[in-house]
Parts: sequence; C-alpha cells; structure tokens
Amino acid sequence: MQISSQFIEKYTDFLTKKKLNQSPKKLYEPVNYILSIGGKRMRPQLVLWGCYCFDDNWERALPVAHGVEVFHNFTLVHDDIMDEAPLRRGKSTVHHKFDTNTAILSGDVMLLLSYDYLFEVEKGKYFKKLFPVFNKIAIEVCEGQQYDMDFETMNKVTVKEYLKMIELKTAALLGGAIRLGAIVGGAKQRDAKLIEQFARWMGVAFQIQDDVLDSFGDPKKFGKKVGGDIVQNKKTLLYLTALKESKGSQRKELLALYSGETEDEKSKINRVKEIFKDLKVVETAQKFQNDYIVKAYQQLEKVNAPKSRKDALRNWAEQLVVREV
Amino acid sequence: MQISSQFIEKYTDFLTKKKLNQSPKKLYEPVNYILSIGGKRMRPQLVLWGCYCFDDNWERALPVAHGVEVFHNFTLVHDDIMDEAPLRRGKSTVHHKFDTNTAILSGDVMLLLSYDYLFEVEKGKYFKKLFPVFNKIAIEVCEGQQYDMDFETMNKVTVKEYLKMIELKTAALLGGAIRLGAIVGGAKQRDAKLIEQFARWMGVAFQIQDDVLDSFGDPKKFGKKVGGDIVQNKKTLLYLTALKESKGSQRKELLALYSGETEDEKSKINRVKEIFKDLKVVETAQKFQNDYIVKAYQQLEKVNAPKSRKDALRNWAEQLVVREV
Repeated sequence: MQISSQFIEKYTDFLTKKKLNQSPKKLYEPVNYILSIGGKRMRPQLVLWGCYCFDDNWERALPVAHGVEVFHNFTLVHDDIMDEAPLRRGKSTVHHKFDTNTAILSGDVMLLLSYDYLFEVEKGKYFKKLFPVFNKIAIEVCEGQQYDMDFETMNKVTVKEYLKMIELKTAALLGGAIRLGAIVGGAKQRDAKLIEQFARWMGVAFQIQDDVLDSFGDPKKFGKKVGGDIVQNKKTLLYLTALKESKGSQRKELLALYSGETEDEKSKINRVKEIFKDLKVVETAQKFQNDYIVKAYQQLEKVNAPKSRKDALRNWAEQLVVREV
Repeated sequence: MQISSQFIEKYTDFLTKKKLNQSPKKLYEPVNYILSIGGKRMRPQLVLWGCYCFDDNWERALPVAHGVEVFHNFTLVHDDIMDEAPLRRGKSTVHHKFDTNTAILSGDVMLLLSYDYLFEVEKGKYFKKLFPVFNKIAIEVCEGQQYDMDFETMNKVTVKEYLKMIELKTAALLGGAIRLGAIVGGAKQRDAKLIEQFARWMGVAFQIQDDVLDSFGDPKKFGKKVGGDIVQNKKTLLYLTALKESKGSQRKELLALYSGETEDEKSKINRVKEIFKDLKVVETAQKFQNDYIVKAYQQLEKVNAPKSRKDALRNWAEQLVVREV
C-alpha cells in the first residue's frame, strides 16, 4: 500500500477514536459533525509526510495531524458564518444545521482542543517546539481571512496583495502542517523550515490552480459549480490580472460586469470568460502557479532527508497539480 | 502603596505597552478597543496575587496576567454576540461598534494571542506547566457558556446544575488565574491547586452575590439597572430557589411572570421581588454565598505560603464581599 494511503487509513482510525462523547452535547456534537463530513484530509497527510521524511515511526505524529485538522475545521466553521455559506462539502454548514451561536462556541472549543492534541504527543515532549510554530501560523490564518474580507470592499487590490492574502489564509497552514510533523520526526530546524517553505509555496500554487479551475475547470472533475467566483465578483488572480491588462472599453465592460449582482449568471460567466481568454489571464496565472511549484521543489531539494522519501512526497504533490485546463 | 494597587498600576502599564499596531487594522483595532474599556482587572490581579504569595518578584507574572485578561475579553466579545448585547461596561460591544464578522474574527485572534502571552514568561520556561491548566479551564469556560445557553430553553434546571454552570462559566477562570500566577511564583503543585480552589469557591460566591445585587442591590453602588435578570427571565439562583420553595397559586404566578416578555417591566420587577422576599430567597442565596466563602478561606488556610501574604489576599477578597443588601 502506498504510504499516503496508509496515512489516510491510520488518520481515519485515529479520528474515529477521537469522537467526542462528553457533555454538554450541544457544544460537542457540531465538532463531531464537521469532522465527519470529510474533505481530503490534506493537512493531516502533510503532518504525517513531515514526520515520515525524518523518522520511520510516523504514527507518533497522529495527534498533531489531528490537532491541525481540528484547527482547520475550526476556521471553516467560523469562516462559513462570516461568508453566510449554507453548504460545505455538499452538506449543511454548522451554523445552518445548528445555529450561529452554536457555530461560534463550538468553533471556539475546537480551537482550544487543537492545542490539546498538539500537547498529546508523548505527554507534551515536543510542545514547546510545536507551539510557537503552530500559533504563529494560526494568527497568519486569521490575518489572511481579514485581508480576504477587506478586499471585498476595496477598490484597488494588487496581484501582490492577493498573493500575500492566499499565502496567509491557505498556504501558511499547509506549510505549518508539514513543519510540525517534521519537528515530531526530529528534523533539524533548518530542515523543518525548508520543508515548511516547500509546502507553503505548493499551497500558493494550489490556490492559484483553484482560482483557474473555478472558472475554467471541467465541471465533472472539479466537483463545484464552474464560475462561482465570477458570479460572486471575487477578486481572484484571474480578475486582478484581467483588470491590470485590460484597457478602454474592455476594462469598462469588465468593471461593469463586476459591479453589483447580475440577473443573468450564465451570460455574465460567458462574457467574463471571453475577456479572460482574450487577455490570456489563464496563461499568466499558470505561469505564477508554475513559478511557485518550481520554487517549492527547489526548497524540497535542499532538505536533508532520504531521497526516496522526498521523491515520494514530490510525486504525491505532483499528482495534485493540474497543468492543463 | 497597597500591593493590590501596585498590581493594577503595573498591569495598566503593561497593557499600554502591549497595544497592537500591526496590520490588518480591522483585525487588531477591536482588540485594543475591548481591552481599553476597562473593567476591574480582577483576573490580572489574581494572577499577580498568585505569584506574590510564593515569590517577591511578582512582576515576572505580568505576561500571564495579560494572557488571562485577553482570554477573558475574548469570551466577552463572543458572548456579547451570542447574547445580542449592545453594551458592555457602558460602551458599545465589539459587534455593535464594528460588526459581527469582525467580532468573531478579532475574538479568535485574541484567543490565539492569549497563548502567546503565556509563552512569553522567560521564553516559555513555564509554558509546559501553564498550558494544561490554562487549556482545561478555557474549555470549562466554553462548557459553562453552553450550559448557560441551554438553561434558557430548559423547563427544569436544578440549583445544583445552576451552581455547576456558574462555577464553569465564571469561577473556573478566577481559580485558574491565581493558579497560573502561583506556578510562575514557583508554588508546589499541592499549593497551586489549593490556592486555585480558594479563588474558585470565591468566584462562585461572587457570582451568587451578583445575582442578589442584580435584584436587590443599591442602584447607585451596583452600577447596573436593578432587576435586569428578572426582566430577562434569567434562571438565577434567586429564581430557581423561589421556584423550588413556592407552592400553589404563588408558584403559578411566578411561572406566569417568567413566561414570555412583559409589557410593564417595573410592576413585574416589583411583584417578583415581593415573591422573592416572601420566600426568603435572598437569605437562602446568602447562606450559599457564605458557605462558599467559608470553604474558600479553609483552602487558603492550608496553602503553604507566608501568613502575612495570605492575610493580605484574604483582606483584599473580603472587601469585595457584600454581606448586607
């Protein structure tokens, strides 16, 4: 069995064992609920990859994998309130299934629990090393979410600002996950930082890829409604690049399409995509994506760990990359 | 200068130095705001008392005092959203002054920051000891808030359940504060636990006192509108005791007064207070309060610390007790 399949299998077992049964039920039920509705378990896998690169006994990092997954799900619960999202992974969001107060408080307790899981590895043996890395990244994730909300009402957002936002909101935790695993695996600080940077750059690349797929992905493979970002006037890399490249009447049209809500979603999506194609923004975005991937692999190259394991990690990451749309 | 005045002075200085100036502004401004609007700084004082009982150099515990205060204010920000409270300490609550999303996210970052402050003492020297105590209590506070919300819609709440709820929601953090300070002061585990139990029982006593003052306090001294709990149909110790003691038509009347919202607040408050007086519920509540204070002082007695410091702590606590209403 491939190592990444083993990671998922063992983590799924661990998650089942960690199901919460204590009182008050209304506080802990939503925690079990959000953790049960799945997702790709990217972050737990990254934690275990981090440990595996430096130590055979990667199962020791399972509590950290769980801590990071619980933290990630806490951010989803609170973000879904802020975004007024009714659905997550095709299921009701916590504030929709229960109510907003429950989602706030259950989210809070998830954040607290995530620290407990980090502490759990060998009775707190690694906690003094794990904590500063984890907390710095947790704060970055909050900052990223704030920038994302700020951008909604800002007239001018630069590509640089956008890249920084997705780095904080999404990529930081991917980098943090693998670094925390590496710490448990006994990595030297230099190597833990390098492998973090690898996953962080990959994280930025994946977010750019998500932006591209949201507008140009194959609906069957993508699993979401194509064009959602366009309908919501989201300032993605595609839009920001288009705005930068467009001139005259085209620029006016793009701004008009992105002002307020449209009545005819389908024709808006089509028209925006035509402009995007005309300005070759997908090519620009894919160039950004590729540059981040190259930088990421360069970091991984420098990590002092067995080549076979680094290759396995690189192959695993590579099969998540979509280069053609 | 009295030692408790020194605690407040030094903590106020510390707080000023900790004002946050980083970006994004919308995330950190509300943190500065809620911390600036005051309160009695009970929890920072308790942290410093805890350290002072075991060590002359109590200023070392200032970062922990701040961590606990930031955590407490995080709970206020999120609780005020859940309670839809427009005012806190006579000023706008965070979700009213800014908005709900800001209050959720700024609250989250406050919780994260509180751990950073705990870590700050001598570069994490005490963190492995401080963390499990802090996290256990932080989870208790969330559980207490959930029980409090549950009680709103429950038909039957017992006095025992109520006392447990206020212990978790309010008293646990007071106990935790002094214990964390004691840990930094070098207290043995036995003494840190005893001094925690002292502050925890005092905390329950203070909450019972608050319940009594809310209905029977002198409006000039109390600083809040008298009768607020009655108007809101809150299941306080007074109400639960009255419900237990009342019979027949009086019980029916009490239940009727507490069902739904009333149009004439003043007459409702007066009628409920008459029933409370008739059933001597204040006397019952004060007996509970006194029992908790006696138990608290017994714990303090057993703490292995200089008698002069324990006496100063007891005197400080005693002057917060209101025995006559």
